[in-house]
Amino acid sequence: MTPEKNDELIKALLWRYATNKFDPHRKIDDATWNTLEQALILSPSSYGLQPWKFIIVQNPELRQKLRTVSWNQAQITDASHLVVFAAKDHVDESYIRRYIEKMATIRAITIESLAKYEAVMVRDFKSRSPENIRSWSARQCYIALGQVLTAAAVLGVDACPIEGIIAAQYDELLNLKDSGYSTCFVAAFGHRNLDDPFSKVAKVRFEVGDVVERE
Amino acid sequence: MTPEKNDELIKALLWRYATNKFDPHRKIDDATWNTLEQALILSPSSYGLQPWKFIIVQNPELRQKLRTVSWNQAQITDASHLVVFAAKDHVDESYIRRYIEKMATIRAITIESLAKYEAVMVRDFKSRSPENIRSWSARQCYIALGQVLTAAAVLGVDACPIEGIIAAQYDELLNLKDSGYSTCFVAAFGHRNLDDPFSKVAKVRFEVGDVVERE
Repeated sequence: MTPEKNDELIKALLWRYATNKFDPHRKIDDATWNTLEQALILSPSSYGLQPWKFIIVQNPELRQKLRTVSWNQAQITDASHLVVFAAKDHVDESYIRRYIEKMATIRAITIESLAKYEAVMVRDFKSRSPENIRSWSARQCYIALGQVLTAAAVLGVDACPIEGIIAAQYDELLNLKDSGYSTCFVAAFGHRNLDDPFSKVAKVRFEVGDVVERE
Repeated sequence: MTPEKNDELIKALLWRYATNKFDPHRKIDDATWNTLEQALILSPSSYGLQPWKFIIVQNPELRQKLRTVSWNQAQITDASHLVVFAAKDHVDESYIRRYIEKMATIRAITIESLAKYEAVMVRDFKSRSPENIRSWSARQCYIALGQVLTAAAVLGVDACPIEGIIAAQYDELLNLKDSGYSTCFVAAFGHRNLDDPFSKVAKVRFEVGDVVERE
């Protein structure tokens, strides 16, 4: 890898911060937004099961309503794009079969050739409690969050992940009630307002020795 | 953003896959590994609290032992670098104070000026059960995983995240018992073995309409 590539990436990750104030007039261009959607879709997940929905909310009235159940945080309405991350409630045999069918189609192989892989997944998820599956799928959503935040930084797009929302109210406003998915958190994307004071302060990290151990 | 930047990023994310077989002879060069460490350290987390330890295991004997409690998965020993992600068990007032002190030092401001922010965090974590805090910190580790996997793809480094480990045995082998941190999962980094059949098959994703909704 070229040294420039390393420097460029570290620079992007240092540039990134949880944007407190977006410029409501600056929209993300279509090509860049499409890349961020691809980053979401291509996110890694356990077994590749993609137990998520990414709900992109662009309707201003709906954004306003979501803001009222997000402690009135301005990023919800002011950001260029808002993504609600919803996690799958159940992973059952029919969902796993749907994934296996997709794999067979994409790779042009038989479903039978995937029988062992399918059985491993079915056995795994049958052994888990509903709460365990729900927390597993929520964790996968956080991988997608990490991927898209990093992708945004690389592309020079600002972002703010927000856990401080009333998830049940999101489920209601987004009609998720009987969808099999539940809201986890949201992330707002756009461009920072140049007068956001948080854009000017240094990133706070513990010492390397506090978070990295070598064995 | 330049169109080249978008194409380059999508190409990197398509190139990435959960590496099944590493080339045990190809090591990640120091500058690139350092960048990946920075990607871990700079990962976003809720409140910026960094409730994690990244344990980089390079000792071959220890890797061999970890492999025996990881369903004998070869990536554990064959990858160039192995990172164990451990999540913080508790977030209490003293930890929050340590973070506030760090923030005051780095930003050259007084601890008093951060009193409100500190109080919000203390109130939040006091209201949570130990299980809730543990699962919160585990989720933050998954953000770091998403960030470092994306960073690796951008740098042309292969990786394999592994949830299939016996976490309690990892805690024992890594002496985490009384550390206040517990093993969540691991990720192996290196370069793919060119004969890894999984490197040659197409990525499997559901249709865009299955995972993306627009409101």
